[in-house]
Amino acid sequence: MNIVDRLRDELGEIVDTTAESLEAARADASGHRSPGRPLAVVRARTVDDVQRTMRIASQTAVPVVVRGAGTGLAGAANAGPGEIVLSTADMNRILEVRPDDLIAVVEPGIINAALNAQLAEHGVWWAPDPASREISTVGGNIATGAGGLLCAKYGVVRDAVLGVDIVLADGRLLRLGHRTVKGVTGLDLTSLVIGSEGRLGVIVGATLKLRRLIEGVVCTLTASFPSVRAAAAASSAVTASGAQPAIMELMDATVLAGVHALLGLPAPAPGASQLTIQTDGPAAREEAELIAQVLTSAGGAVALTDDPDEGERMLRIRRSTHPALASMGTTLIEDVAVPRSAMAAMFDEIERIEHAYGVRIPTVAHAGDGNLHPNFVFDGDEVPAHIWAAADELFRAAVRLGGTLTGEHGIGTLKSRWLAEELGDDQWELQRRIVQVFDPQGILNPGKVFADA
Amino acid sequence: MNIVDRLRDELGEIVDTTAESLEAARADASGHRSPGRPLAVVRARTVDDVQRTMRIASQTAVPVVVRGAGTGLAGAANAGPGEIVLSTADMNRILEVRPDDLIAVVEPGIINAALNAQLAEHGVWWAPDPASREISTVGGNIATGAGGLLCAKYGVVRDAVLGVDIVLADGRLLRLGHRTVKGVTGLDLTSLVIGSEGRLGVIVGATLKLRRLIEGVVCTLTASFPSVRAAAAASSAVTASGAQPAIMELMDATVLAGVHALLGLPAPAPGASQLTIQTDGPAAREEAELIAQVLTSAGGAVALTDDPDEGERMLRIRRSTHPALASMGTTLIEDVAVPRSAMAAMFDEIERIEHAYGVRIPTVAHAGDGNLHPNFVFDGDEVPAHIWAAADELFRAAVRLGGTLTGEHGIGTLKSRWLAEELGDDQWELQRRIVQVFDPQGILNPGKVFADA
Repeated sequence: MNIVDRLRDELGEIVDTTAESLEAARADASGHRSPGRPLAVVRARTVDDVQRTMRIASQTAVPVVVRGAGTGLAGAANAGPGEIVLSTADMNRILEVRPDDLIAVVEPGIINAALNAQLAEHGVWWAPDPASREISTVGGNIATGAGGLLCAKYGVVRDAVLGVDIVLADGRLLRLGHRTVKGVTGLDLTSLVIGSEGRLGVIVGATLKLRRLIEGVVCTLTASFPSVRAAAAASSAVTASGAQPAIMELMDATVLAGVHALLGLPAPAPGASQLTIQTDGPAAREEAELIAQVLTSAGGAVALTDDPDEGERMLRIRRSTHPALASMGTTLIEDVAVPRSAMAAMFDEIERIEHAYGVRIPTVAHAGDGNLHPNFVFDGDEVPAHIWAAADELFRAAVRLGGTLTGEHGIGTLKSRWLAEELGDDQWELQRRIVQVFDPQGILNPGKVFADA
Repeated sequence: MNIVDRLRDELGEIVDTTAESLEAARADASGHRSPGRPLAVVRARTVDDVQRTMRIASQTAVPVVVRGAGTGLAGAANAGPGEIVLSTADMNRILEVRPDDLIAVVEPGIINAALNAQLAEHGVWWAPDPASREISTVGGNIATGAGGLLCAKYGVVRDAVLGVDIVLADGRLLRLGHRTVKGVTGLDLTSLVIGSEGRLGVIVGATLKLRRLIEGVVCTLTASFPSVRAAAAASSAVTASGAQPAIMELMDATVLAGVHALLGLPAPAPGASQLTIQTDGPAAREEAELIAQVLTSAGGAVALTDDPDEGERMLRIRRSTHPALASMGTTLIEDVAVPRSAMAAMFDEIERIEHAYGVRIPTVAHAGDGNLHPNFVFDGDEVPAHIWAAADELFRAAVRLGGTLTGEHGIGTLKSRWLAEELGDDQWELQRRIVQVFDPQGILNPGKVFADA
């Protein structure tokens, strides 16, 4: 019996082999795609479905690519020929909300924004807020160690997950972590699974650490600068001032002009870059006023509002970056992070690389935490050689400045070529051996992260 | 050549075999000790010293126990016959402080309080604050995943470490993690090392995530309750109110009376338990007033001050718990954590176990995060069988309530008997195999955490 027949035999109607589903599973939101269609998409509804799928896969040594909403930006969930896709998108229930203990227990397929909409009714929220939050799953957020806009003030995913349940490659279920704020029982496998991009196990549940909703006024500022370097230097000055913005985003001139065009807004001044900043909490107003002074001193043209609708409108400009870039061509989205003091120097490097390779690199940045998204835009499906070369130089520049290859998108297939260089060969090999402890046959997402398949 | 001669030959005067040093290395602050003296104490001053020691150890298959200040409470740093002690206490420099990037790079031997004294000059601090902060090292804080009083508001160690440098069992140096707020390059080995209690590698450096000093007034409250259950219920009511204390500590009647006696204060009312609470930040006063109302409604006799000296005096009572207990006999300090809503139920369980076994279990708790320290006090060096039996029942009660065996002290030797029960056999075995990836010969702290030696 072939593998698809066997899956269908055991799992029935949740095995989907329609051309549309197979085709969709080839690509994620990066726009890059696998060389061809996978064998089948198993749409798991229960932990038992996942366990049965993994048992069949391990018995037949067929590789499995786990997939949530497919909104990743590094190709980690792209499935190809000979592979089974295991979708946890339909496992989307909230199993428990405990506002008194500030925890929630959820299935992996729930959409980040849908979760937060329901949590809001209890006066609580889950802080990780990737730009994809309206369309990405909590399981995917955990699998990639996703970041977002609020990380500098409210933490990253690893700060917001107390436990994960995973199904191992051989079908066994492990419950990792705790329901408590503190817990140091043995090795911290919960953190190890966060950001492991489908290589260690299938995430089938998570215990999330919640926060109480922030009450009171939210202040929003924009500040326009004549150059991206000036905007970056101003963001460093804000950080150095001691104020702690909830959000501090930077858009360079190309992105700002592109978004204005997309939204039908008046064109910004040529070369103008923009910071968009929000403050919240009990000191929101004082911090906003302090930040406005810092930005003005740094040469910015500042607008400040405490009106929620006006604030949302200002932030929408930043959130429209991805569609604006997508309208220009295929993008290779980089995701370097540098120490915050090195932001301006990183923009200098980007400008140097633009000139050296004759390319435009429209860039946005989570300026509050030093995470930049330089975007390479090109025509067609394949990344041209000169773009790879420019990206290579950009990665090296970030590492020279004390930074890292990926702040929040992960390695997937698009960045695995650089992984060993950042980790060093010894650490790369050690990490691979840890993967083998979880998955001795190497059937979980082979070739992703570690180029080993 | 025997191992000590070989160490001395290669490392010279940093090899210490004085009876006093060998004897001291047998025990940590738990009061429990190994069966006999180790072979030698190597007092490393550099990363190279550590690497050379580990190369000799791996070539000769001699086990190594890494030790900082020896303030652990679970026996993880206790060294015995046939073992080398590798002390990193003298590697105690701060290599770099970057207030603009909110990071510091340190050697492992620096004392937590000494680090924070120097950081304060830059307007920043490192949040982890174990009760031992005046005497414990940052390396030890990381190796145990230490907690403290401020965790509910300011996070645990894993939230405050961006990278660690470790020397592997075979002497190779690995640099794990990042200097950036975000970073998801490969598996999160930094988090895996945090709390690994000397089993994965020797921590020789760390990149710490700092916070800006909190400005403004600090308010301190105490509230006295007629029973420990009432105090626990009041602490849950504070958490449920939405206020976020920086510190919320609970002392039961035995501890409170013992500390008052130790400090020469008037005896508290019989049976009286006490909460000690601090608020800080921009809403410190409003939160303190809200908390005072909640405590009064819950039947507490409340005192509130914004005077720093008075606040410190009130907090000193809580900080004197360990000496007060030590004056009563040898202690087995438990460290269970439960979801915050289960605090009162856990105190009911403790009372039940006291009656069932005819023992007193004086208890303090970090009530803000559900972490309890029930203490068994006995005479002599050996834990009596009935105390182990009572501790066993206490652990099971915590797990039944959704809790865990250890919130912040770790497993060491004292809790390894329960580890597999909490993790499950599959996860226990998986964790052991991960240890083997780092240390195939099993020479790093064998028998600790996993009872495998």
